[in-house]
Amino acid sequence: MDINSNRLIEAAVTEFGQLPGIGRKTALRFVLYLLKQKPEDVEQFGSTFIRLRNEIKYCINCNNISEKHLCEICSNTKRDRTVVCVVEDIRDVFAIENTNQFNGVYHVLGGIINPMEGIGPKDINVENLVVRVGQDEIKEIIMALSATMEGDTTVFYIFKRLKDFDIKFTTIARGVSVGDDLEYADEVTLGRSILHRIPYENTLVK
Amino acid sequence: MDINSNRLIEAAVTEFGQLPGIGRKTALRFVLYLLKQKPEDVEQFGSTFIRLRNEIKYCINCNNISEKHLCEICSNTKRDRTVVCVVEDIRDVFAIENTNQFNGVYHVLGGIINPMEGIGPKDINVENLVVRVGQDEIKEIIMALSATMEGDTTVFYIFKRLKDFDIKFTTIARGVSVGDDLEYADEVTLGRSILHRIPYENTLVK
Repeated sequence: MDINSNRLIEAAVTEFGQLPGIGRKTALRFVLYLLKQKPEDVEQFGSTFIRLRNEIKYCINCNNISEKHLCEICSNTKRDRTVVCVVEDIRDVFAIENTNQFNGVYHVLGGIINPMEGIGPKDINVENLVVRVGQDEIKEIIMALSATMEGDTTVFYIFKRLKDFDIKFTTIARGVSVGDDLEYADEVTLGRSILHRIPYENTLVK
Repeated sequence: MDINSNRLIEAAVTEFGQLPGIGRKTALRFVLYLLKQKPEDVEQFGSTFIRLRNEIKYCINCNNISEKHLCEICSNTKRDRTVVCVVEDIRDVFAIENTNQFNGVYHVLGGIINPMEGIGPKDINVENLVVRVGQDEIKEIIMALSATMEGDTTVFYIFKRLKDFDIKFTTIARGVSVGDDLEYADEVTLGRSILHRIPYENTLVK
């Protein structure tokens, strides 16, 4: 008997195996785990993902996930709609919201430009960002993308697309992580942290 | 907005998070992956697990997974039914089958004795192994469990349960892995490999 001999197991291993970072061994481990659970729990396990995919909606303004027309952030009147933070995906929205340091709104690109993987400007939500900047009263766009080549490329592309608008175009600070030992910081990060040094009084908690 | 604010996402993250070794961050990564897939693919993803759990059967003889009454191995007349290899779960059946070195049949315990996790002898399939040994013409039981304290405990327990039967009771060899450098082998393994040394001619491929 080979692992292929049981169609059901094989099908389930294949389904788990498509998840990012999951190989066949881990997938089989998941399958064995599910086989030990109660049928009703597995029923719920499977149907949750089906409901998720079918029922979830995206905010028509910022592309954040939302169960309504507008997401909770866009429809919150206490948020500053003149400042838009541009992020790659909703994970970044969660991460930034958890810092409690941002009271503006978001724009979720749904990806970043990555020529190696065939992802171009048309594959991410840039057009409706341009439309937003043209229609809404936006004063500042904060680019909060990963500090990678792909992230920098995307920032540059969006910068060019928005250069004719009268807005402030900023990116989040790159620097030595809080709590990090200086001697272990890489040279590029350390270089940028010197280049973009800030007045000490700005770092004091007000 | 917190990660909790969207019930559907939260439910899906919780479902993935129950899988062994999967934390909330990885679970969220899986959820984002599913959200990018076609609805029909996610439909298949979810329903595969529900079918798996509802339709899979276990071999009444060896507890291996099987879609029929008897599994493919137990119903294969070319296999030697006098030699039974006792394993923890079906993953081990796959692994041993892939070696092409075993032509006997299996007995799947479905776990090993682990007092720390509250798994006792009654929680694993020992009783029907004893029944099998009493009924079938079994000449040898090969214990193929992990080389851990739990594995050794389980081997000892089953050894005691079967000691009145006229059978050969063996365990798989412990020793230096093929391809491993001797200086990196741990002392216990090295010690066992010397203790259980074998005549050189037995290692030659016939």
